Amino acid sequence: MADEKPIREFNLSCPAPRVADDRIVLAHGGGGRLTHQLIEKIFLPAFGNPTLDQRHDGAVLPVNGSRVAFTTDSFVVRPLIFPGGNIGDLAVYGTVNDLAMCGARPLYLSAGFILEEGLEMETLRTVVESMREAAAKANVQLVTGDTKVVDKGKGDGIFVNTSGIGLIESNVKGTIGPASVQVGDAVIISGDLGRHGIAILSVREGLEFESPILSDTASVWPAVEALLNAGIEIHCLRDLTRGGLATTLNEIASDRSVCIRLEETLIPVQETVQSACEILGLDPLYVANEGRFAVFVPETQADATLDVLKKVEVSQGAVRVGKVEETPARTVVLQSRIGGNRVVDMLSGEQLPRIC
Amino acid sequence: MADEKPIREFNLSCPAPRVADDRIVLAHGGGGRLTHQLIEKIFLPAFGNPTLDQRHDGAVLPVNGSRVAFTTDSFVVRPLIFPGGNIGDLAVYGTVNDLAMCGARPLYLSAGFILEEGLEMETLRTVVESMREAAAKANVQLVTGDTKVVDKGKGDGIFVNTSGIGLIESNVKGTIGPASVQVGDAVIISGDLGRHGIAILSVREGLEFESPILSDTASVWPAVEALLNAGIEIHCLRDLTRGGLATTLNEIASDRSVCIRLEETLIPVQETVQSACEILGLDPLYVANEGRFAVFVPETQADATLDVLKKVEVSQGAVRVGKVEETPARTVVLQSRIGGNRVVDMLSGEQLPRIC
Repeated sequence: MADEKPIREFNLSCPAPRVADDRIVLAHGGGGRLTHQLIEKIFLPAFGNPTLDQRHDGAVLPVNGSRVAFTTDSFVVRPLIFPGGNIGDLAVYGTVNDLAMCGARPLYLSAGFILEEGLEMETLRTVVESMREAAAKANVQLVTGDTKVVDKGKGDGIFVNTSGIGLIESNVKGTIGPASVQVGDAVIISGDLGRHGIAILSVREGLEFESPILSDTASVWPAVEALLNAGIEIHCLRDLTRGGLATTLNEIASDRSVCIRLEETLIPVQETVQSACEILGLDPLYVANEGRFAVFVPETQADATLDVLKKVEVSQGAVRVGKVEETPARTVVLQSRIGGNRVVDMLSGEQLPRIC
Repeated sequence: MADEKPIREFNLSCPAPRVADDRIVLAHGGGGRLTHQLIEKIFLPAFGNPTLDQRHDGAVLPVNGSRVAFTTDSFVVRPLIFPGGNIGDLAVYGTVNDLAMCGARPLYLSAGFILEEGLEMETLRTVVESMREAAAKANVQLVTGDTKVVDKGKGDGIFVNTSGIGLIESNVKGTIGPASVQVGDAVIISGDLGRHGIAILSVREGLEFESPILSDTASVWPAVEALLNAGIEIHCLRDLTRGGLATTLNEIASDRSVCIRLEETLIPVQETVQSACEILGLDPLYVANEGRFAVFVPETQADATLDVLKKVEVSQGAVRVGKVEETPARTVVLQSRIGGNRVVDMLSGEQLPRIC
């Protein structure tokens, strides 16, 4: 019977390759389309409330008359130690930056460790020491913690969750977040793209470069603080982590029903990072960063914003890369080096698992 | 040569069994002596600050003139679903209770998921639904979250971190915490002991009872709120989780250089829990609870405290079990059923791994 079936019909009835939706796959953690589906199908229906629905990097909450920012991140990066950092400083800076993206001064962190039986104590000591240094640099206090141990083969060395509390100070005008993005806004990024993702991947793939590519992991709060102190009217801040610039901008374009138009020639990527991306078949627009953010400001404040950012070490490579337009809505468009336009879509599958 | 060595000498030179201190073992997560060593040797030297040094269930922090409590807990319980609850409601109540133990009204929670590739979506849905129900019951909002996915065999279904923010309201007198415990204080516990640990272990060991033993997982905030509203002068609150009553009281006796004297006949343990403990060779004093706490109050307020607690559902089984004395310092002493006294030491090894 099967032999009689024409090949053509077989092809037609063969479903397109798709991801099973009854089980978790790696791409559910990649920050792209499947992560969003998980949030929309499982988490928001259960927990949906006005704060969570804003889907910002952190929540801004009223606490006894103050505006407090609260955020959480679990870190599962592999390898634990990579060029330019390790899971410890990454976990501190990651959460500090999520608070900064709310316009909040980072104050306090928690640390929750899940350790795998058999982990070398020396590795833990190295990671904890990096957390200490990073917390000191970022001027946050690690005030509460928790440690669990799982059986060998049920974890992967160290997973660490950092949650953080920050304070939105009284000089912050309005709400900083995707909801404040407007047509006409300038889009500025704080520096070159792709270093964190490529630093991780080059270790995993055993790639060696003449000058090693170091992760950009760092606290971006000094840059945000400088913008606030200068009185810049910030509409939105977003760090460019999982899924990179492309995913972040797609989220905002989709939330606000706007078009974000980028110019490829303006987007800074180190030459070694660009070469590595070509070898690995990656697009730097989708590669994770851990010390970079995008800021949306009114067109009239674009130059002032750049002036302020360039004076701060972590954002000295700041550059204006695009603008917010009305149409085509829900789209990120890249005007390419050779003149054409292409749509920069949200990441569908998993580009780089366990990047943070 | 070896044959000539007298057995006696061999015995003398053979080191006592000990735990290697260069690698993580399961007992580092058990809440007993090794957990404390890890905190003292690795975490406190790196992060030590006045808040962390208090080693309470959560941190109490000044935020813009308010007293805010902040706490974190990662949950790695196995199995994910157990009689009376699952990792989801456990994670909500666990963090709510840590806030309550600071005398803080629980307000906001974060949820950080680490999912293992291949996890059934239905399991995740069940857990998330339980979190929703528990958050609603405990009157807290889940306001921010994060999801990571790790490769199959590098996790164990679901790990979840919940961090929480609470507010210490203005009717809280002084500081609630181990530092306020005084000689003469009465020690009251909020109900019977051992149900959570035995519920978990009975599933793992395939034990069946005529009436199943259900975990006691629940929010204890209503009991704490009632005490505060009644104007009880609470010296210290501690939940009786990992390591049970024995470990909690040892921590306090050691911190305050006091003796805590208990009367065995006063300590409530359900008959089925007692039988299960005997079968499993466990002491209910060391078994984890997830809806029980100890409260230290001045002797003169002991009766009033009991009256208040007994009117609240979660603490209706409250009972006075002991008192704080001066000597022998740093010791928990149990006056046993048959009249003798025995020292109740801190747990040395791992009684029940992955209980929460």
